[in-house]
Amino acid sequence: MTNRLRGILAPVVTPFDADLKPDARRFVQHCQWLVSQNAGLAFFGTNSEANSLSVNERIALLEALVSSGIDPAKMMPGTGCCALTDSVELTRRAVDAGCAGVLMLPPFFYKAVSEDGLFRSYSEIIQRVGNSRLRIYLYHIPPVAQVSISAGLIERLLKAYPGTVAGIKDSSGDWNNTEMLLKCFQSESFDVFCGSEVFLLQNMRGGGAGSITATGNVNPAMIHDLFVNWQQDDADEKQAKITGIRRAFEVIPLIASMKSVIAWKRNDPQWAEVRPPLMSAPKDKAEQLRGKLDEMGFQMQF
Amino acid sequence: MTNRLRGILAPVVTPFDADLKPDARRFVQHCQWLVSQNAGLAFFGTNSEANSLSVNERIALLEALVSSGIDPAKMMPGTGCCALTDSVELTRRAVDAGCAGVLMLPPFFYKAVSEDGLFRSYSEIIQRVGNSRLRIYLYHIPPVAQVSISAGLIERLLKAYPGTVAGIKDSSGDWNNTEMLLKCFQSESFDVFCGSEVFLLQNMRGGGAGSITATGNVNPAMIHDLFVNWQQDDADEKQAKITGIRRAFEVIPLIASMKSVIAWKRNDPQWAEVRPPLMSAPKDKAEQLRGKLDEMGFQMQF
Repeated sequence: MTNRLRGILAPVVTPFDADLKPDARRFVQHCQWLVSQNAGLAFFGTNSEANSLSVNERIALLEALVSSGIDPAKMMPGTGCCALTDSVELTRRAVDAGCAGVLMLPPFFYKAVSEDGLFRSYSEIIQRVGNSRLRIYLYHIPPVAQVSISAGLIERLLKAYPGTVAGIKDSSGDWNNTEMLLKCFQSESFDVFCGSEVFLLQNMRGGGAGSITATGNVNPAMIHDLFVNWQQDDADEKQAKITGIRRAFEVIPLIASMKSVIAWKRNDPQWAEVRPPLMSAPKDKAEQLRGKLDEMGFQMQF
Repeated sequence: MTNRLRGILAPVVTPFDADLKPDARRFVQHCQWLVSQNAGLAFFGTNSEANSLSVNERIALLEALVSSGIDPAKMMPGTGCCALTDSVELTRRAVDAGCAGVLMLPPFFYKAVSEDGLFRSYSEIIQRVGNSRLRIYLYHIPPVAQVSISAGLIERLLKAYPGTVAGIKDSSGDWNNTEMLLKCFQSESFDVFCGSEVFLLQNMRGGGAGSITATGNVNPAMIHDLFVNWQQDDADEKQAKITGIRRAFEVIPLIASMKSVIAWKRNDPQWAEVRPPLMSAPKDKAEQLRGKLDEMGFQMQF
């Protein structure tokens, strides 16, 4: 296979207008900037507030993005919903739009579901979409979804749908799990992405494909630089620096903190908005964050 | 206020056809039977696999139900979704259809969200629906949603939207929590429903309004009988009997077990189907359940 998505992808944050509607203009502009910084577009992820959007709102953003002229080969939208029919609809649209892949949450409402049930879910989606161009990246994020992608499930899916099941994003926050995934599954047709750039160097050293990471939204160039130069002598130093920036953002819940910084750097306060149940960054904390980032020499070049 | 929903409501299980599409005919038929057994209709609940349905699938079932002629005063559909716009759309439809109330999950994708964020979520929905006929029953089900309705949140919502915020279903499984809700909030304009008939007698003795309970789908008459006669001498005996039947159903995950029993009693195997990520009841366990229920003299009269 050629043209596989590798490297750094950002789960693109979704801008809202004053009425809390998704703002396609700001969204496309942010995506264009990310691409200019060598980041791929994993829009409709956790940090995109994707599950706070209706299916129709997601379709409208996808269409706006595709018609903006950005190459769909850089796109890996999230399409995993609680409802089978929603996942099928979004996945079908993504494949038809030519997206390189989709990042797929398991259905996350019911807890303690069986491996059989999760296999059945992915299986139904793959069969209903019925397109050989489909590439699914499994999305393992137990702290949020509370429903996990186990090694046993991956094994069954790879056996049933080789080629289609194309990789995983590991947002467990547990390096031991990523290491297991690299050892057991990383191959030319199955890519392991770490879910935070904090693990990027370790993931590259273990043979991984890169990182799909929140702060790819604000710090893509530095993270991409480490992705390209991970075999150089100064890689550990670079890792420490990007980790430091990540930690600075984490003093506020990440979605709110990244949006507040984009609002600041773009001089566009509307960017700070989030949809409920989230809350935008408190003024004092956002100000502290700006001070801290200035101290660190953090920049976003538009 | 008159005509408040009290008593026993069933979170109506959703039948699927062989293609896993919601089956409106079987759905309406089951609802008609439930109403004939004095159960209210809390369709689109956890046991309805509501979050496994798209918004359009839910709207189609709501329309089929309303046009069947069943009195909407008996209806309390679930309308709480992860996406604000979905919750608004479904709630608006329910109010327009004349439903007595809606049962509203908090947005359940993000975990550890703030009370401010949850208040903001309910608040936005109430304001966007903007209809004085709206009655919201809060849905507290931490084992599944993992996002809780705290006493502090109820207090703030009642202060901001008295009359509109009309009650709660407590599916915590923790009687201490239900007792707290009864003591702090039960009133003529705020009703506390226990989320399982196992607590029905305790809830009635504490001044509660009844129960919205899974097994209302299969055992509504006996549960309703206890609701009506909870002050009689044999109430504890009745409670023990309905609890026993509940426990029998619980040997298999409840949705699958109830559907397998409806399929059996209606001699209609298609009723046993569930959508992924759930799995229908294994044959051997379903057979054991039928044996056990026969032993207990369990009946469903159509």
